[in-house]
Amino acid sequence: MKIIDKINSPEDVKKLPLGEMDILAQNIREGILKRVNDIGGHLGPDLGIVEVTIALHYVFNSPSDKFVFDVSHQCYPHKMLTGRKEGFINNQYSISGYFNPDESEHDNFTIGHTSTSISLAVGLAKARDILGQKHNVIALIGDGSLSGGEAYEGLNNAGELNSNFIVVVNDNEMSIAENYGGLYKNLEELRNTKGNSQNNFFKSLGFEYMYVEEGNNIEALIQAFKTVKDINKPIVVHIHTLKGKGYKPAEENKECYHWHLAGFLDKKDEISKPIETYESITTDFLLNKKEKNEPVVAITAGTPGAVGFYPEFREKMGENYTDVAISEEHSIAYASALAKGGAKPVLALLSSFIQRTYDQLSQDLALNKTSATILVFWGTIGPMDATHLGIFDIPLISNIPNIVYLAPTNKEEYLAMLNWAYNQNEHPVAIRVPFIPLKSTGIEDKTDYSKLNKFKMIKKGEKVAIIALGNFFNLGEKISNKLKDELNIEATLINPCYITGVDKDMLNNLKETHDLVITLEDGVLDGGFGEKISRFYSTSSMKVKNYGAQKMFTDRVPLNELYKMFGLEENQIIDDIKKLIK
Amino acid sequence: MKIIDKINSPEDVKKLPLGEMDILAQNIREGILKRVNDIGGHLGPDLGIVEVTIALHYVFNSPSDKFVFDVSHQCYPHKMLTGRKEGFINNQYSISGYFNPDESEHDNFTIGHTSTSISLAVGLAKARDILGQKHNVIALIGDGSLSGGEAYEGLNNAGELNSNFIVVVNDNEMSIAENYGGLYKNLEELRNTKGNSQNNFFKSLGFEYMYVEEGNNIEALIQAFKTVKDINKPIVVHIHTLKGKGYKPAEENKECYHWHLAGFLDKKDEISKPIETYESITTDFLLNKKEKNEPVVAITAGTPGAVGFYPEFREKMGENYTDVAISEEHSIAYASALAKGGAKPVLALLSSFIQRTYDQLSQDLALNKTSATILVFWGTIGPMDATHLGIFDIPLISNIPNIVYLAPTNKEEYLAMLNWAYNQNEHPVAIRVPFIPLKSTGIEDKTDYSKLNKFKMIKKGEKVAIIALGNFFNLGEKISNKLKDELNIEATLINPCYITGVDKDMLNNLKETHDLVITLEDGVLDGGFGEKISRFYSTSSMKVKNYGAQKMFTDRVPLNELYKMFGLEENQIIDDIKKLIK
Repeated sequence: MKIIDKINSPEDVKKLPLGEMDILAQNIREGILKRVNDIGGHLGPDLGIVEVTIALHYVFNSPSDKFVFDVSHQCYPHKMLTGRKEGFINNQYSISGYFNPDESEHDNFTIGHTSTSISLAVGLAKARDILGQKHNVIALIGDGSLSGGEAYEGLNNAGELNSNFIVVVNDNEMSIAENYGGLYKNLEELRNTKGNSQNNFFKSLGFEYMYVEEGNNIEALIQAFKTVKDINKPIVVHIHTLKGKGYKPAEENKECYHWHLAGFLDKKDEISKPIETYESITTDFLLNKKEKNEPVVAITAGTPGAVGFYPEFREKMGENYTDVAISEEHSIAYASALAKGGAKPVLALLSSFIQRTYDQLSQDLALNKTSATILVFWGTIGPMDATHLGIFDIPLISNIPNIVYLAPTNKEEYLAMLNWAYNQNEHPVAIRVPFIPLKSTGIEDKTDYSKLNKFKMIKKGEKVAIIALGNFFNLGEKISNKLKDELNIEATLINPCYITGVDKDMLNNLKETHDLVITLEDGVLDGGFGEKISRFYSTSSMKVKNYGAQKMFTDRVPLNELYKMFGLEENQIIDDIKKLIK
Repeated sequence: MKIIDKINSPEDVKKLPLGEMDILAQNIREGILKRVNDIGGHLGPDLGIVEVTIALHYVFNSPSDKFVFDVSHQCYPHKMLTGRKEGFINNQYSISGYFNPDESEHDNFTIGHTSTSISLAVGLAKARDILGQKHNVIALIGDGSLSGGEAYEGLNNAGELNSNFIVVVNDNEMSIAENYGGLYKNLEELRNTKGNSQNNFFKSLGFEYMYVEEGNNIEALIQAFKTVKDINKPIVVHIHTLKGKGYKPAEENKECYHWHLAGFLDKKDEISKPIETYESITTDFLLNKKEKNEPVVAITAGTPGAVGFYPEFREKMGENYTDVAISEEHSIAYASALAKGGAKPVLALLSSFIQRTYDQLSQDLALNKTSATILVFWGTIGPMDATHLGIFDIPLISNIPNIVYLAPTNKEEYLAMLNWAYNQNEHPVAIRVPFIPLKSTGIEDKTDYSKLNKFKMIKKGEKVAIIALGNFFNLGEKISNKLKDELNIEATLINPCYITGVDKDMLNNLKETHDLVITLEDGVLDGGFGEKISRFYSTSSMKVKNYGAQKMFTDRVPLNELYKMFGLEENQIIDDIKKLIK
């Protein structure tokens, strides 16, 4: 019998003798490997934190004691210890890979972005104090999240608490990729001195401090947590763990196994055949600039792998590559100032994480009209977790003055836009990198993108005009073909290219020969592109119908269900059009 | 002759003997006092930094050496030393109170929000290194800005620079009001130990460190800056200055004179008669909850005065008041977690500064559906600096799922909304506090705001419907009256109350008896409220015209000019309506 079989709640953990806890750790690792091999997920971070999680649940009393896990991507062992092991391991889609209060009272918040745990925990601690309650509040942070500004703001405010507050820093020497920045040098110094260095970031902010070298030793961890339990002031417990612990490939190649697709256990680690992707043509573009000794600077904020900045690329770029660490706010200001200083910054962020940067986009970038290039990856309606949706970047970016936000639809268009953005010196330019398989026309795009807000008329027709943005240009083509086949309508098809403006001339010209304009965008409707078209025509007799996502957080909903729910299926759109033009 | 008369550029500062520099400092102080007394502005911060600025320009060579001033509200002496003294002192509206690259090559960026200087300076330093240039890059930060997450992200990344990088920390022991947080305790410890404490925040992040006790002593400052000039690594120069130096009332009452209205020199500091404002009814509301021993927590992020949280209020609230310091991101997560923990948080932010919090509003608040109340002050079209516009909060907040964003139009409505927001437990609620003189109906508002998105039909008419949001409800009334007077149209007048949704029933009902709907909102049109109404009617024959601000950064443009430019004058609107209904 496996030890995990008798664990149905944290109460059961407390009953285990120490010897069985090590077996439990092994059982949990098997569960993590099975889940990630079955459906993909975070591997290295969770393998590294198994013992910490067991010790936390052994010493503290969740849910009366409150845990807040940063990003909560390290919650896999926690899920298995809090009554969800069956679903987590075997019925995997029933249990998410992040904290989820709807699943369990042991998950205190829905969490998926980095650097929020300390802030949230400070709020819980203050509520406890105001309400005269007594319990421990424990924030668990690490794996790169400490460099985010929100974490620091929380640490600073925690310095004002005169009550129980425990921050567990899980230091596995890594972010998603390698760590960058002065903070991480301090963590290294603290590790090297077994916590005794005079330079101590946490102490400087008013925290008590404790170091635990053997972060994968349950006994040592229990001892440490018992010491700090019920403490009456803020303390940091700095724990040194091994990312990927217990699965050799993950221990040896930490970045590759930070998050992994399903099926890795059966495959040898073969070198996959290089295929051309939007990521690969981006890195080729940047390497080419580097080879020509141009002052290019490729920038990521801690997610190099997610934007195609693979290790060999980073090495080749050398000084022309910056990972600012998980610090999206800084990344925008940094890119803006690089442009101001005469360099050529190209910053790659994910749609969901660019949410951290609204004010920097507005103040540090747009107001200053610096010619930085921002690449926005993973902008799309999709089956992601609610914390990682890629649908809000259009309203976020496109309603800020001065920024040019572009939506390419194929390889050549993307390269032409990237080339223009890189070479010009007038505008901050963001490009929504297509989140669809790479499509090539084979014909170089010679469009002059400096003529802002000029939409491309792909096919001139009548009665119905389809304005199909970025990823949804393909959908526009399909609707156009169906209208021809089913209704014998030669619809107009437009690729707007620009998200941040409307082509007034072209739209005005449509009025004479068209009754209906439909807009298609792969993002949320509210505040988005289509509404601008609706506003443009709102005083005319032109009818407009906007297609996109509804304003809601969807959580791991399959794409076909999302499309159906949002009325984005081809037949739904055709039916709408039939009604609107009758 | 005044010394300042012979200063027309930093070159002239370099020629001065030390004795004349002290006189120059006195001349500059007179200039600051004259300007602020004439047109209002930042007083204490600039009086405190006169000597630092003289010494900076004496030692470094701007513009080849690059200065980046945080918030840049401490740029008054800098402006006077860089060829702009005449305009700054006498033709005041010609020269802004912030960095402005259009004015001078000595201003490296347009800056107005806090905590950006280090980030921007890191980018300038990296550009310098990539381009093989040699010059100093100097970020000047202080007066409360160091607690912002972006500053920390920049500090962390600076730890990776192996080249010249100088951060001047102007420590005047204050933020706008008193300082809060562990960081400021560390600064105090450093001051108390003359820089020798083992706990050193800056050293822990990899910086060299130097302390200057006499921060208003030009000779000491020159010595310090000469020592660090051309240094080949990142260093912090921590300078202890006196906020308000040289003007006794500002030295004694630092918060009151942080920023001051014009005319203070002629007036005695009389206690002004208390008048009822949206701020005062807010603090009364909060104090009442405190007196009833409810778990209310009033929160500000470093701007208590701007939201009416006056010193006596703060004192009375005691533990039920939190100033999280300048850390807007944290303030949202903190408020959300307070609600989660069972307390009653009411967080007050300014429209311009809530821009820092998009991701926290989305992830920490909205996704978690915690019932925090967020009060948004200063949301309006106005003559502010480009860095402080209050027009973007509607697209920012209203396109995030789950948040209820309310726009009251008078005292009773505001109180009813505040009361509902505070008492309910289902929704994150933001309220756009009116930025107009308080208007009272004298009749208690008994609306049940839990019935979301129910617009109020104020006057039922025909042909034209006016949907007038928040601050612009008054304008809606005026348009309604003019339509009656001039065109004999009994227009429908609607107070929508909710920014985050549309009242489908009411809007559908208008279709039968109306030809035109106009929307009025005191904010930017793009991504805003009106566009949602346009989208709603876009497939019908209803014409819609949206009124609000165009998507642009306006800089100190008088309100009447803004209204004219945006077509918001009553006659412009009436003329439009005439054309649209003919």
